[in-house]
Amino acid sequence: MNSNETMKPYVIGLDLGGTNSVFGIVDSRGEIKAQIAIKTQGYDKVEDYVNASIDALMIIIDQVGGLDKIKAMGIGAPNGNYYKGTIEFAPNLSWGHNGIVPLAELFSKKLNNIPVGLTNDANAAAIGEMTYGVARGLKNFIVITLGTGVGSGIVINGQMVYGCDGFAGELGHTTMRPDGRLCGCGRKGCLEAYCSATGVARTAREFLEKTDDDSLLRALKAEDITSLDVSIAASKGDKLANRVYEFTGELLGEACANFAVFSSPEAFIFFGGLTKSGDLLMKPLVKSYNDHVLKVFKDKAKFLISGLEGSSAAVLGASAIGWELSEK
Amino acid sequence: MNSNETMKPYVIGLDLGGTNSVFGIVDSRGEIKAQIAIKTQGYDKVEDYVNASIDALMIIIDQVGGLDKIKAMGIGAPNGNYYKGTIEFAPNLSWGHNGIVPLAELFSKKLNNIPVGLTNDANAAAIGEMTYGVARGLKNFIVITLGTGVGSGIVINGQMVYGCDGFAGELGHTTMRPDGRLCGCGRKGCLEAYCSATGVARTAREFLEKTDDDSLLRALKAEDITSLDVSIAASKGDKLANRVYEFTGELLGEACANFAVFSSPEAFIFFGGLTKSGDLLMKPLVKSYNDHVLKVFKDKAKFLISGLEGSSAAVLGASAIGWELSEK
Repeated sequence: MNSNETMKPYVIGLDLGGTNSVFGIVDSRGEIKAQIAIKTQGYDKVEDYVNASIDALMIIIDQVGGLDKIKAMGIGAPNGNYYKGTIEFAPNLSWGHNGIVPLAELFSKKLNNIPVGLTNDANAAAIGEMTYGVARGLKNFIVITLGTGVGSGIVINGQMVYGCDGFAGELGHTTMRPDGRLCGCGRKGCLEAYCSATGVARTAREFLEKTDDDSLLRALKAEDITSLDVSIAASKGDKLANRVYEFTGELLGEACANFAVFSSPEAFIFFGGLTKSGDLLMKPLVKSYNDHVLKVFKDKAKFLISGLEGSSAAVLGASAIGWELSEK
Repeated sequence: MNSNETMKPYVIGLDLGGTNSVFGIVDSRGEIKAQIAIKTQGYDKVEDYVNASIDALMIIIDQVGGLDKIKAMGIGAPNGNYYKGTIEFAPNLSWGHNGIVPLAELFSKKLNNIPVGLTNDANAAAIGEMTYGVARGLKNFIVITLGTGVGSGIVINGQMVYGCDGFAGELGHTTMRPDGRLCGCGRKGCLEAYCSATGVARTAREFLEKTDDDSLLRALKAEDITSLDVSIAASKGDKLANRVYEFTGELLGEACANFAVFSSPEAFIFFGGLTKSGDLLMKPLVKSYNDHVLKVFKDKAKFLISGLEGSSAAVLGASAIGWELSEK
């Protein structure tokens, strides 16, 4: 540990979600020393959101010895632009949906001008995996986040891929089925329309409608079915629910086979709610990958589930951006 | 120019094709000072091929002042593995189809142990574009080679993407149509099965079979039609031939829209025989890209045709690997 680290041993990680904003103070070994959360919504102006954040942050900053102990801050946020430190047209944020918000700069100004970095949540997850998780030591891997949507963070030659504009790694919007399901982005057949949590629920509704097969899911109103319901039914041996996961895994495997010809990663790492279904999803995924992939890549890549469990994973990922920044 | 460059001002570039092997001696500004070629085939053992190569090479090496003037050598070859300097199971090479050939090492031994680098031909094209061509100054771009097959070379953050095993950038084997045309790789619906020169000829045959439309191509035997025939017919205003290029361009645009969500390149650069058709291909390609791509990428990327015209392009690309190597 050098003298600089001794003097400023912590970074702030902010996991900025659609509902909650979770702040953590993290040391260089990935230990969260203090944590606090506020609601993300309910502010008309970003300045009000930042002020409320700083009020909360000061409580945990004081707990670790004051602002002088803080080296940098990292933010993982929807529609985050790494190059500019901005959130751009984020549909789900009351104070960020209709413009470009310079969030990194706003936080830096309130925090004695410490360096503040920002990227989208899936990239933060990838940096978190590389720094603290199952991707430690890997130079070429792809993190795929399976939540409400499908996000991705790509690492090549040990570096995050941001592309020319900061928006690279939107693999959830790879077209898997021309003229397939309508996606939230307005286009058709995107991976996200099938393999997100909402996609899984949609697949279940389709299977229920198209067949007469018995299923525990028939006890629920079709429009209320969630991916969690499907997962619970599948774990009870429900055949239709199992087929939903098979279908989802197969399509994800097919997608990964296409990603392999691009960057030939040594591992695909899955992160987020759907991974809780474990082998239900992963077995058909790996089989489908090996069935679909170009011969030279067969049986090479590892398929891993994120080791960063629990609510702190996203905070750690965000904090890793702060470390990355402070090392430049 | 530093003293080292003054003393060793040249690198050797080898464009190792299925038919000919073209050697060039190139200076740091990309000027080819001397060039010679031998047949690639007709040797049972790689040692015989290397010996014949060295015999020819010595003629042009002497022309530029001897081996002391040569800094390094770069090779662009089918199935080339950059990490290992090997050619692996290249189906079209009599001396390289059934094993792993350490070609870089074999050449280095015969050339006073100068550094010798090797990569696949599409990666060589990408390095050539970055060093001497339309990609000078670009940090994020994708070169797509449209020849007998479809190859690609991907540059991210100013670095070639080789992946964990040296085989990244096989975008010709992206699945575009599940259960589509059978590809040479044994899988179905690959980009290469549609958008290579052979794919274009195949599309023409399909269009001729499925319709009764008049076409100049009906004067030819269906099985003899080449992409050149289609291009000539299209340039004479033949509607069916024009539709073949539209179809090809549209599918390429759709593919590029999927590549954009991966690495968000600032440019796509097209290289190889099919690009000679110019706007016939590029207009539908760019339109289709913007129709298919995720909103945030619309109208951002440039679509360029390689500026490295003529037979020397591949030699320059290969020589650039030599320069890259000698700068390490």
